[in-house]
Amino acid sequence: MQSRLGSRETGKPIATARNLRLTLAYDGTRYHGWQIQANQATVQGILGRAIEQISGEQAKLIGSGRTDAGTHARRLVANFVTRARMAPAAWVRALNSILPHDIRILSARRVSPDFHARHDARSKLYRYQVFRGAVLPPHLVREHYHYPYPIDIPAMQNAARKFIGEHDFGSFTPSKVADSKATVRRVFRCELKATGRRLLFTVEANGFLQYMVRNMMGTLLEVGRGRINLARFEELFSKRDRTLAGFTAPANGLVLLRVRY
Amino acid sequence: MQSRLGSRETGKPIATARNLRLTLAYDGTRYHGWQIQANQATVQGILGRAIEQISGEQAKLIGSGRTDAGTHARRLVANFVTRARMAPAAWVRALNSILPHDIRILSARRVSPDFHARHDARSKLYRYQVFRGAVLPPHLVREHYHYPYPIDIPAMQNAARKFIGEHDFGSFTPSKVADSKATVRRVFRCELKATGRRLLFTVEANGFLQYMVRNMMGTLLEVGRGRINLARFEELFSKRDRTLAGFTAPANGLVLLRVRY
Repeated sequence: MQSRLGSRETGKPIATARNLRLTLAYDGTRYHGWQIQANQATVQGILGRAIEQISGEQAKLIGSGRTDAGTHARRLVANFVTRARMAPAAWVRALNSILPHDIRILSARRVSPDFHARHDARSKLYRYQVFRGAVLPPHLVREHYHYPYPIDIPAMQNAARKFIGEHDFGSFTPSKVADSKATVRRVFRCELKATGRRLLFTVEANGFLQYMVRNMMGTLLEVGRGRINLARFEELFSKRDRTLAGFTAPANGLVLLRVRY
Repeated sequence: MQSRLGSRETGKPIATARNLRLTLAYDGTRYHGWQIQANQATVQGILGRAIEQISGEQAKLIGSGRTDAGTHARRLVANFVTRARMAPAAWVRALNSILPHDIRILSARRVSPDFHARHDARSKLYRYQVFRGAVLPPHLVREHYHYPYPIDIPAMQNAARKFIGEHDFGSFTPSKVADSKATVRRVFRCELKATGRRLLFTVEANGFLQYMVRNMMGTLLEVGRGRINLARFEELFSKRDRTLAGFTAPANGLVLLRVRY
């Protein structure tokens, strides 16, 4: 697995830098999202310190993308370069022995030096979870938004399908974001399923703007309440106006399911 | 809904005692089970205090049965008698506004004065949840037992079916329990399902002895590991010997799903 070539000058083996790809899961309840921040517990910050504790290196830890404070991840991908000679499976064990139980490394493998968890991501798959019953049961509290109001689900499903394809999502992100960057994204898959009293909104796209899934969900809920009709919904892609779309659904209902490369 | 009859002596209306039936759910992680105990947080203790806060009465709160420290409930049933004139739906709102979020009243209704949540229970349905993958994902930590070892699932399913019917479960409860009370129970339903890397063991019986489901689960896992063969398994019903059965699976994998009346 590692280079057998020695240095020409010293004859000693050179520790070859290895690019390691991690797949990780976390319960985001206690965290300020993925991205490292001063004075806040973030997944990138905690994982970076665990890597340093094991290897002694301050590795540059690259995640597949930011996640909002309070959102969860089932299979987020990250990578970092290390000179440590540990096997990937040993990294998994060592990291999990240090990390808190609400962050788990599911797997690790060595990848080519040019793999970059953010640049190479082709799509991300998110799920937003709603509970519609009168009382939110304790086992669903952490990962469901409680919305116990009558809604027109077929109307919402009809609207959800309109997200599929390439659109300008400028109305679905804070205006300061929409004003400062390109806001066109391609949605590959978008569906809303009602199972019992749960509502599961699944969306896969080549990229997501800040709060985009949560704003899509809030907009669909307002469609379901009859507050946004289909004509106004279709204008959202042309007007790039945050005030026309629905509210931002709370972070705790959002789960990053998978990243594709 | 309440008596219109007055007292013969004073002419004032007498508040009629009402028997209220509650259905409740809880995440048992923080609790020492249902039954009230000195110096321990229990669901019965916390719910009893909430009732007292609302009605001013120290009601005798009857649960469908004890649950172990750390186990969970989806639809436990309890009842209590009160002279408060509140409608059942108002009780639900008032209790949920006081109770911590990991205990929720799902519904309340007035029942006949002789309804007794424990004596009248005809069966209870439990599920024990196991996760078999190498790393336990954070969203399953609270309600799954992590058992990442190779197991023979068809052998376990075969053994699980043998629990069905009327048997002496003396081998499946601590010997001090088996020595002091009747240990024959009737199992109406018992099945083990493997879904992905989860293993779900479902059992319904007319009653359960202390640790009975957890000991059944531990025994099935030892069958799956090849440590208990079918001949020894069948002896468990005749020998009443706790040492012949398997280990007690941890409390956090156990969920009371439903009580039938």
